[in-house]
Amino acid sequence: MTVTPPPSAPIPVVINGATGKMGRETVKAVAQAEGLDLIAVLARNPDHIGQDIGEVIGCGPLEIPITNDLEGTLAFAAQEKQIPVMVDFTHPDAVYHNVRSAIAYGVRPVVGTTGLSPQQLQDLAEFADKASVGCLVIPNFSIGVVLMQQAAIQASRFYNHVEIIELHHNHKADAPSGTAVQTAQLLGELGQTYNPPAVQETEKMAGARGAAAAEGIRIHSVRLPGLIAHQEILFGAPGELYTIRHDTSDRGCYMPGVVLAVRKVLELKSLVYGLDKIL
Amino acid sequence: MTVTPPPSAPIPVVINGATGKMGRETVKAVAQAEGLDLIAVLARNPDHIGQDIGEVIGCGPLEIPITNDLEGTLAFAAQEKQIPVMVDFTHPDAVYHNVRSAIAYGVRPVVGTTGLSPQQLQDLAEFADKASVGCLVIPNFSIGVVLMQQAAIQASRFYNHVEIIELHHNHKADAPSGTAVQTAQLLGELGQTYNPPAVQETEKMAGARGAAAAEGIRIHSVRLPGLIAHQEILFGAPGELYTIRHDTSDRGCYMPGVVLAVRKVLELKSLVYGLDKIL
Amino acid sequence: MTVTPPPSAPIPVVINGATGKMGRETVKAVAQAEGLDLIAVLARNPDHIGQDIGEVIGCGPLEIPITNDLEGTLAFAAQEKQIPVMVDFTHPDAVYHNVRSAIAYGVRPVVGTTGLSPQQLQDLAEFADKASVGCLVIPNFSIGVVLMQQAAIQASRFYNHVEIIELHHNHKADAPSGTAVQTAQLLGELGQTYNPPAVQETEKMAGARGAAAAEGIRIHSVRLPGLIAHQEILFGAPGELYTIRHDTSDRGCYMPGVVLAVRKVLELKSLVYGLDKIL
Amino acid sequence: MTVTPPPSAPIPVVINGATGKMGRETVKAVAQAEGLDLIAVLARNPDHIGQDIGEVIGCGPLEIPITNDLEGTLAFAAQEKQIPVMVDFTHPDAVYHNVRSAIAYGVRPVVGTTGLSPQQLQDLAEFADKASVGCLVIPNFSIGVVLMQQAAIQASRFYNHVEIIELHHNHKADAPSGTAVQTAQLLGELGQTYNPPAVQETEKMAGARGAAAAEGIRIHSVRLPGLIAHQEILFGAPGELYTIRHDTSDRGCYMPGVVLAVRKVLELKSLVYGLDKIL
Repeated sequence: MTVTPPPSAPIPVVINGATGKMGRETVKAVAQAEGLDLIAVLARNPDHIGQDIGEVIGCGPLEIPITNDLEGTLAFAAQEKQIPVMVDFTHPDAVYHNVRSAIAYGVRPVVGTTGLSPQQLQDLAEFADKASVGCLVIPNFSIGVVLMQQAAIQASRFYNHVEIIELHHNHKADAPSGTAVQTAQLLGELGQTYNPPAVQETEKMAGARGAAAAEGIRIHSVRLPGLIAHQEILFGAPGELYTIRHDTSDRGCYMPGVVLAVRKVLELKSLVYGLDKIL
Repeated sequence: MTVTPPPSAPIPVVINGATGKMGRETVKAVAQAEGLDLIAVLARNPDHIGQDIGEVIGCGPLEIPITNDLEGTLAFAAQEKQIPVMVDFTHPDAVYHNVRSAIAYGVRPVVGTTGLSPQQLQDLAEFADKASVGCLVIPNFSIGVVLMQQAAIQASRFYNHVEIIELHHNHKADAPSGTAVQTAQLLGELGQTYNPPAVQETEKMAGARGAAAAEGIRIHSVRLPGLIAHQEILFGAPGELYTIRHDTSDRGCYMPGVVLAVRKVLELKSLVYGLDKIL
Repeated sequence: MTVTPPPSAPIPVVINGATGKMGRETVKAVAQAEGLDLIAVLARNPDHIGQDIGEVIGCGPLEIPITNDLEGTLAFAAQEKQIPVMVDFTHPDAVYHNVRSAIAYGVRPVVGTTGLSPQQLQDLAEFADKASVGCLVIPNFSIGVVLMQQAAIQASRFYNHVEIIELHHNHKADAPSGTAVQTAQLLGELGQTYNPPAVQETEKMAGARGAAAAEGIRIHSVRLPGLIAHQEILFGAPGELYTIRHDTSDRGCYMPGVVLAVRKVLELKSLVYGLDKIL
Repeated sequence: MTVTPPPSAPIPVVINGATGKMGRETVKAVAQAEGLDLIAVLARNPDHIGQDIGEVIGCGPLEIPITNDLEGTLAFAAQEKQIPVMVDFTHPDAVYHNVRSAIAYGVRPVVGTTGLSPQQLQDLAEFADKASVGCLVIPNFSIGVVLMQQAAIQASRFYNHVEIIELHHNHKADAPSGTAVQTAQLLGELGQTYNPPAVQETEKMAGARGAAAAEGIRIHSVRLPGLIAHQEILFGAPGELYTIRHDTSDRGCYMPGVVLAVRKVLELKSLVYGLDKIL
């Protein structure tokens, strides 16, 4: 019988994909977070097997050797007194198997890896449900982005004019950004149409007025070197402007969301999708 | 016996202080708002008595003569089938008497006039309570400012570093602005201390780091011609910045708040203070 | 023989189109400007003829009656000891005649009225040249816009990535704004191509990346109530962003440009086009 | 007799302090810059001597071994057909000796190291002068900062109201930033006083109105995690705001200034201080 640990007992954490960009940040964040206990790390690169993860990522020794043995690691984690969590930042072709295995061992998955198909997500949801094992699948760990979107939903109750400007470095190939499209969709699902025209608009140069997203919302995508990842939502009404903006400059900004997810997944008994559900 | 009118029946509205800056905007807003019926206007300037308010404020004839007869107007309003509302943008020395009289006639007051003392507020609250008459006292009708403050309160759950920049025209004598101080207080009341220092800070020039407001929050006040009224709340965390900004350019921005208050006061049975309570 | 007056002698100023939106501002600005002497005002509306311009525009008595007698006014102005200036904010169908008449009387025109055809401009240039009479034709009196454009030209020597965001109220029918298009053209004429692609870009929603203006420069047009007239030029390079922004909230912002033009036209002997030429 | 090389001949470059933060960026920038030829690198750390600089800084092999032999390296550089340049990002206690030695060998110094005393600067200026050897001492290599300051100087001809907001990460101990103070000084030296008061201002909370810098200019310093290094200069006038902003997110932003300095130092015959002199 599993007893929920008291809050003071540290949560055992396994990180899968520990040498990738997000994995490295997660190792550092988990190693420093209060109440979290990094117990094992997994990585695929054979060169790193057996090396100390702290040395490999350059944050000083952590005395945790890198392994590629998923089953063994999960079995080891399952022996902990407290319920363990596995954070997964691996690869689209590996994530389904990783998550399924973790659930089978009773290890709670926090999944940041993208690429799960709708069918795979549904399978995992059913599997987690049957096992009564909490599982979090989170495409974007930025708490700030969720706050921005929630504040925008509040604002849309009083403003019906809104445009979105998203600004990214010029190595981003797609426009608009996924977050901007998702923000427009969230606002569009609230049952109102935005930006009723005050005059007959004419675009003297095609594209000037941006992309027409959900329910009349406009999105403008700026791409410049020197930019990193920024989004601005502008609400307008006669005599006033209300603006919500989020600027990202470093992957470190995702770590509060990762740590929060590690803590929250223990309260769940099924698969939950999206950071907004646990804020 | 008073029956709450069906939503389709227009609300009779009296405007007191109709020729002042806010009064003029309110006349235009109420005349255009769906479901509101401007039935009378009051003003103190003897030159305007008997003139049509629409002509005086330059928005075309409204066929409503200006009067200075408060009692007569309230008695007239009280005869309407629907419950009437009086919007008060008058003067600190008149507002207490105006509100008390309105309540006595069963006319619901929406009060934008400043200057009520705490004692007067309490008196009016007791009087409204006894009469079971709703009354709204609203120092700032900007819905955007309340949204900004509510979004800041949400953000403070996840960020503990925050500074406020408020920017106003250079004819504003006081710094910081009342809204900035109030925003800091709202955040300060949430039980946390902000901006724990990362290093020992040194002000090489006094005042560079702004004013120390509630619980470590810093406020910076910019004053320039060309500015109108702007406030920005910046939350920071490693790798990200979350910013909420409100820009005011015209008194028209207060009108959605006034119209909302006129509608909401009818649902109340006592005195309520602040726009945030009815959003 | 005409002698340039000493700087301390006030410049006699005639304002044509004094009751229009720009004319009213100009009356107030000229009446207050040091070294300028408002001597006559012209307007077409028969209702105003003979009335004091100060009363009509609501800034207190100026003791200058409105007239519609152009010839008489110019003849009167020509008798002044100092060289007079006529500021013209009238109508496309009147401006050519007004300017030609002024030059004939030796009154220096400062022309803010739009709508002169290229042929008309050339005729007036030849006429001014023959008469050795300075004449300024200025489509935009905003010194700030010229400063922004000049700063952008300086910046383009070191940055070759640039995008423009212009934001206006939602009653503006055309996009992009004339100023944004002109800014892009100015940068495009400098002999370089901007925004060489770092990746193959894909617009998942048409228009997201804005309008393709001169030489690869992108323009994004935002339209919202609450906005007035704003332009932002963003230059990017690895690790940095350089932004120049101009916000307009009131016609008063054009008056320093008008007053400057009145002073500068006296130094000219021919027709000059554009505020940038006299800064 | 020294002949200026044709533009197509690459400039031989020595980097002193190649393993420091700025040195590493410089190695990468010089290795990639057209017309520059990295011929030698110096560093003090004994562990790195003999290792390939490209391997040490993680940008792939460059086949240039790290040395700590200043004299030998300068003698080697002096044998090049083209005039060589030494970029110095070392240490306050070494820079004077480094620069003096370089000049003695006819190697042109570009000095980014801080800490030269006024006396040392004057000595080096005299020494460079006698030797007719160009030398650049540049405390800040950001071209964007110089552009911002030059644009501000232009703007100050037309605006006499200005405030500066500088925003930095919360590990910066001093406020205001050196760049903000320097910007205020540059504006203050132009012979005008800024921000004549329109009303009697009252600071209800000390520091709200920021620091009083040169000639009435106000500086506001914001410190938050998530910020990097940002400066905004706001000019105001009735009805308009003109804003110049520079955002730094990465040391890479200094490299265009370093590369420019390497090219420009060859045109000089004496010591020149500041990037603004060569733009």
